[in-house]
Amino acid sequence: MAKKDKTYQSALHEKDGIDPPKTLSKDSAISIKSKRQKQPSVDDLVEGITSGNITALSRAITLVESTNKAHTDKARNIITACLPYANKSIRIGITGVPGVGKSTFIEAFGTYLTSIGKKVAVLAVDPSSTLSKGSILGDKTRMEDLVKDENAFIRPSPSGNSLGGVARKTRETIVLCEAAGFDIIIIETVGVGQSETTVHSMVDFFLLLKLAGAGDELQGIKRGIIEMADAIIINKADGSNLKAAKSAKVEFNRALHLYPSKASGWSPKVTLCSALKKVGIADAWNLIKDYCEITTSNQYFEHNRNNQNKFWLLQTIDEHLKSNFYESPKIKLELQKQIDLVEAGKTTPFAAAEYLLSL
Amino acid sequence: MAKKDKTYQSALHEKDGIDPPKTLSKDSAISIKSKRQKQPSVDDLVEGITSGNITALSRAITLVESTNKAHTDKARNIITACLPYANKSIRIGITGVPGVGKSTFIEAFGTYLTSIGKKVAVLAVDPSSTLSKGSILGDKTRMEDLVKDENAFIRPSPSGNSLGGVARKTRETIVLCEAAGFDIIIIETVGVGQSETTVHSMVDFFLLLKLAGAGDELQGIKRGIIEMADAIIINKADGSNLKAAKSAKVEFNRALHLYPSKASGWSPKVTLCSALKKVGIADAWNLIKDYCEITTSNQYFEHNRNNQNKFWLLQTIDEHLKSNFYESPKIKLELQKQIDLVEAGKTTPFAAAEYLLSL
Repeated sequence: MAKKDKTYQSALHEKDGIDPPKTLSKDSAISIKSKRQKQPSVDDLVEGITSGNITALSRAITLVESTNKAHTDKARNIITACLPYANKSIRIGITGVPGVGKSTFIEAFGTYLTSIGKKVAVLAVDPSSTLSKGSILGDKTRMEDLVKDENAFIRPSPSGNSLGGVARKTRETIVLCEAAGFDIIIIETVGVGQSETTVHSMVDFFLLLKLAGAGDELQGIKRGIIEMADAIIINKADGSNLKAAKSAKVEFNRALHLYPSKASGWSPKVTLCSALKKVGIADAWNLIKDYCEITTSNQYFEHNRNNQNKFWLLQTIDEHLKSNFYESPKIKLELQKQIDLVEAGKTTPFAAAEYLLSL
Repeated sequence: MAKKDKTYQSALHEKDGIDPPKTLSKDSAISIKSKRQKQPSVDDLVEGITSGNITALSRAITLVESTNKAHTDKARNIITACLPYANKSIRIGITGVPGVGKSTFIEAFGTYLTSIGKKVAVLAVDPSSTLSKGSILGDKTRMEDLVKDENAFIRPSPSGNSLGGVARKTRETIVLCEAAGFDIIIIETVGVGQSETTVHSMVDFFLLLKLAGAGDELQGIKRGIIEMADAIIINKADGSNLKAAKSAKVEFNRALHLYPSKASGWSPKVTLCSALKKVGIADAWNLIKDYCEITTSNQYFEHNRNNQNKFWLLQTIDEHLKSNFYESPKIKLELQKQIDLVEAGKTTPFAAAEYLLSL
């Protein structure tokens, strides 16, 4: 209805309008209403998740991945309610360059684990998904058996505008998967940017997949990856590759020796496997079991998870502080000018920083 | 004078006091006044520094190192005025564990450089100086010749309450030394905490001093140091040590091969030296000259300095943002509580961070 107030009866007053037509038919209204009723509540989803309902789990993860404020609020409540049921899994990070056979390994490893009674969730952290909207685990055809396995749950990498955002969603998804009863959480990543470091800081055990090849086995490995690995598994160790794989094992063992010992008390191991022929898969699992035994008895396992939590708490704060600062219009305007002045030798980095902080 | 106000004439009123005696004698006043006049102005100091006056340089560095606001303001003005004269040196970082012979090496290397007409400044970044008030370069008796050399300037590590603070003072001191005509700036550090990374981010060339010893030469080396080194120099390669030093050289060359190639286009080198017998010192300098030639022609040298400036600008901002946040009384009160809640599984790191950021 248009305004009728006497005080507005000037030459510019508005005429009384007519009521808009009723475009919302009765049928539509009923349909919308029924759909709204179908949106499960926080309690519904938590109950579903904790009783192992995959639909409830998937829906909750979708809320975690949403950028809609109402969804993220709901997601936060679900996660908080799931926390008492979480934390009871083994979280395994798996990395390796494209072509090393990550999908084939996860397929073989995952189906082995479900065959011995485990429930396996497979997640991914793929920073390139920011651009390509998800590439790892996108092609589930390479995990044919695992996809059909009722004790396995596969979820591609969430997309996000920062690695921090992707990581946060994945960490929250871990909590939901654990509450849904998954006792092995595999997190796959490709070696892009900081993604391995990010995955390393959210898992209990970090596994590097490698291939045996010609020449120096270590050439081209990204800085720091070897240091993070709890195990290096040389894949495709079959047929004519076997000899090269064996000598790669020697080479890697030698390389691992060069690094200082780990706070976990665990000495990283090198093993061979053929994911395609399902050889060496049980060995990988036994290795991880050994690791868990050692680090549980020396309390590193729990200590590490606490440290990771603290790291993520501080990391989240740091990210917010920085983005608040750098996204302020004043700073956006002045930052490059100050960098230029520093480069031109007209000011020092410290004086420039002080100036920017004073804005 | 004591209060005389009528309103205070109660039983508790104060009696009139007497004026204090004149403790400041005429002579003292004249002496203080003349000392005050001797405090050089910014212009005086800049003129002194740029004409190579060591007293002016030392005084300016003392202002840089001061925590007094008036001093730091003055220091900032001096640095800004010195900037046009700075940036024309080669900055060399030197690290190595205690006992490797850093002081002896710097003594030999520094006197070699002055003998070929260079002016050498030796600074230090020692995070342990926070507690011990300076330990490296504190004992100048190990640099007897260099101390007496008029073309050398040695300044111990500044103290500070954070590595960031120590680093800032050292970086500003580099500018002053360059303006004073020093064309080689050596920055010594011990392998404590993040100090090597800090020094690496303020130098053009990073040199790791090592000893040949029994067993695996790489055992015990701190993570990432080898990756940062542009050269590894094996010291004490003399007498009965020579054979071990030679095989250590082979071992290190092998290790350096394992790392990805550097953005500088420079392949790190391993050489032998005996700082005590002054053998291999010219080789070290020739190596650095080669490095400068290559990185000047491929423009990495300038590119790296610009990156370092940008790094220090952003780093300084980050440190300020964090200290502002974490030193707020509200956060001090709540941070540990939130960490405890996260550890107890009652909240997630992300929810805790959001809560703290909302305070």
